[in-house]
Amino acid sequence: MTPLTFQIHETSASTHARRGTVTTPHGSFDTPAFMPVGTRASIKGVLPPLVAATGSQIILGNTYHLMLRPGEALVRELGGLHAFMGWPHPVLTDSGGYQAYSMSDINRIDDDGVTFKSIIDGSSIHLSPERAIQVQNDLGADIIMAFDDCPPSVDPRTLNETRKRLAASRTSASKKGYDHGVRLEQALERTTRWLDRCKKAHQRPNEQALFGIVQGGADLDRRSRSVEEVCNIELPGYAIGGVAVGEGFSDIVRVVHHTTPLMPADKPRYLMGVGYERDIVAAVRAGVDMFDCVLPTRNGRNANAFTPTGQLRLRNARFARDPEPIDATCDCVACSPASHGWATVDGRPFSRAYIRHLFMAEEMLGPILVSLHNVRHFQRLLVDIRRTIGDDAWSSLGQRWPVVGDALAEPLRTPE
Amino acid sequence: MTPLTFQIHETSASTHARRGTVTTPHGSFDTPAFMPVGTRASIKGVLPPLVAATGSQIILGNTYHLMLRPGEALVRELGGLHAFMGWPHPVLTDSGGYQAYSMSDINRIDDDGVTFKSIIDGSSIHLSPERAIQVQNDLGADIIMAFDDCPPSVDPRTLNETRKRLAASRTSASKKGYDHGVRLEQALERTTRWLDRCKKAHQRPNEQALFGIVQGGADLDRRSRSVEEVCNIELPGYAIGGVAVGEGFSDIVRVVHHTTPLMPADKPRYLMGVGYERDIVAAVRAGVDMFDCVLPTRNGRNANAFTPTGQLRLRNARFARDPEPIDATCDCVACSPASHGWATVDGRPFSRAYIRHLFMAEEMLGPILVSLHNVRHFQRLLVDIRRTIGDDAWSSLGQRWPVVGDALAEPLRTPE
Repeated sequence: MTPLTFQIHETSASTHARRGTVTTPHGSFDTPAFMPVGTRASIKGVLPPLVAATGSQIILGNTYHLMLRPGEALVRELGGLHAFMGWPHPVLTDSGGYQAYSMSDINRIDDDGVTFKSIIDGSSIHLSPERAIQVQNDLGADIIMAFDDCPPSVDPRTLNETRKRLAASRTSASKKGYDHGVRLEQALERTTRWLDRCKKAHQRPNEQALFGIVQGGADLDRRSRSVEEVCNIELPGYAIGGVAVGEGFSDIVRVVHHTTPLMPADKPRYLMGVGYERDIVAAVRAGVDMFDCVLPTRNGRNANAFTPTGQLRLRNARFARDPEPIDATCDCVACSPASHGWATVDGRPFSRAYIRHLFMAEEMLGPILVSLHNVRHFQRLLVDIRRTIGDDAWSSLGQRWPVVGDALAEPLRTPE
Repeated sequence: MTPLTFQIHETSASTHARRGTVTTPHGSFDTPAFMPVGTRASIKGVLPPLVAATGSQIILGNTYHLMLRPGEALVRELGGLHAFMGWPHPVLTDSGGYQAYSMSDINRIDDDGVTFKSIIDGSSIHLSPERAIQVQNDLGADIIMAFDDCPPSVDPRTLNETRKRLAASRTSASKKGYDHGVRLEQALERTTRWLDRCKKAHQRPNEQALFGIVQGGADLDRRSRSVEEVCNIELPGYAIGGVAVGEGFSDIVRVVHHTTPLMPADKPRYLMGVGYERDIVAAVRAGVDMFDCVLPTRNGRNANAFTPTGQLRLRNARFARDPEPIDATCDCVACSPASHGWATVDGRPFSRAYIRHLFMAEEMLGPILVSLHNVRHFQRLLVDIRRTIGDDAWSSLGQRWPVVGDALAEPLRTPE
């Protein structure tokens, strides 16, 4: 028995896009879905009912951060992640692998897992398939992710010094005789073996849906093989990992367009860590159903506001006297407070001038308002994408969201 | 014509306390009233509708900070402080005097006003009665405050070095031949002369109610004289200034108990910058109608949560696994989210363990939740105080709010 069901309501005639509903023990969410990121059991600066008010129906929590602080045992003791953070709706947790590989000082990677130093206190932490699943069983999310081996897709010796240093720990590239191709092969095979161990270790298969992760880097043949191996293991859903880790739009599109249609059509497909608006639209057209990204909240904290025509840097002096909302077409609490039942003066929005003032004065309300706006921006795009799938009217979507332009260049479904 | 009306609904038989309503161009507020402080056009971390949800009916803005950034001209251009910050309810601004005296590097104090260095860019700023009123006319609050001369009540030469240095700029105490008594006399007379100039300079008397400020330090005779002089100038309300600037509870009570009953009974009385729960209860019993204080938000940002039995330091390890809300008797959004219509897991509150986690992880939601709780804590106390005035049941108030204990020791209304 799976704790997750996926219903496809309609598909796009000219692309691989589909509109559906995923149902979990904590309720349903519409797909294609965008998940804002609540790394440490909090969408930064946004109270749970305001997260829900953005149209977010599922959020993501980070296993790596939560296992280090406050620790999965405490979260479990407090009733699991939903109860702990006051979010009664669906939650997905990642496996911790990506952060362990990308954020940590790694001591060892072998067939058993990864040993790294805690960013909190420097203590030695071990993550293995079994441990990643145990932590996620304790956190109690509706969807949990397999623990995979994720080296950088690009040979780290071709990167600049800073990125090389970061990537080296994921590849052992600093060692003599390093061969990037060999490392990618190893990661591919290991990911499959680890997925098998994850499935066996999973103690709550009736309450939490385990998703496998397809790897294979930028090499399309490896992606094909990974899909075959990973999707051969029966699971309620599958993800594409190792994308949007620094490569450009065209590389993302190339991998996603190749990989997604190979994955089972009756299971939700999740593109991890993506992305910008055009990345999302391109991936939806390839058949992706789920997305997560820190962009709306991270950029919100930096005064960068998303709009259909591009980002506004609200610290810029040109907004100092600007009475307009961030985006006059937006219905978020910052741009349209009255429509949320908020008492206002003459129905006025929070102006760009006010929000700029908040950032200049280092007032918390600046990051709060722009994060709220940005998350709603992405949810509005997803609402529009879901509507577009049914009527297949992609060019009018592109007119409403000029930022997605490039994503519509290529029709995806080839005549069969 | 005054833009402010004050109706007294009932009075306490055993004390000077009274319950009433103040009506302004932006609506009414119940008295005794507590005003949270929105220094830079924002109650730190709290969106306006959530400020309103705490029961706050009027908030305070700081002229000193707003004139420096973003500047009163911009606020005026954007429709005034209410529209600028999205708060359509009553607002009070102070005159900037207290901050100019206490926060600034002062260059000169004379009969014309104060010249000081901007904390933003070090430029030279001049505040005079005329300038303070012009700025407040532009900000557009419902209640504006007179610009007064406020030296420290205690002779700065009796303070320790740090406090002496701070106070010296307000007194010229560093100069040879400084006489604290002479300085206090000067301030008293100057405050009256400046009030007269404020009233004359006030350009919007039909829209904004100007309050005078009684000074006189810790000397009760000077307080009596100041009441006589200040309240001799006809205004819609009067405040007591120069209290809660570092002295203890008994000194606050002594000054407030002496001064308040001397002030006009038919006008609202505002005790500036006060204070802790027991200070407020003691002052209400003396006949004070309005209070403001940064305590709930400042302490909230530092993880100090108010409860009826005292403050909790939520970073303390003893709260690490505590599933209880901050205060089980509280109806704020943190302690009782379900009662605000927030979707929760089994109606659970935000736990002390979760809030502690947020502070340990430096998540904004920690300051946000505790600020919301703390402001509601003060508003719940004021609700209870207003109820208590009618039935004169002060000892049962003390039972519900053990923190106010000392404030109830002394019956105030002496048989006439």
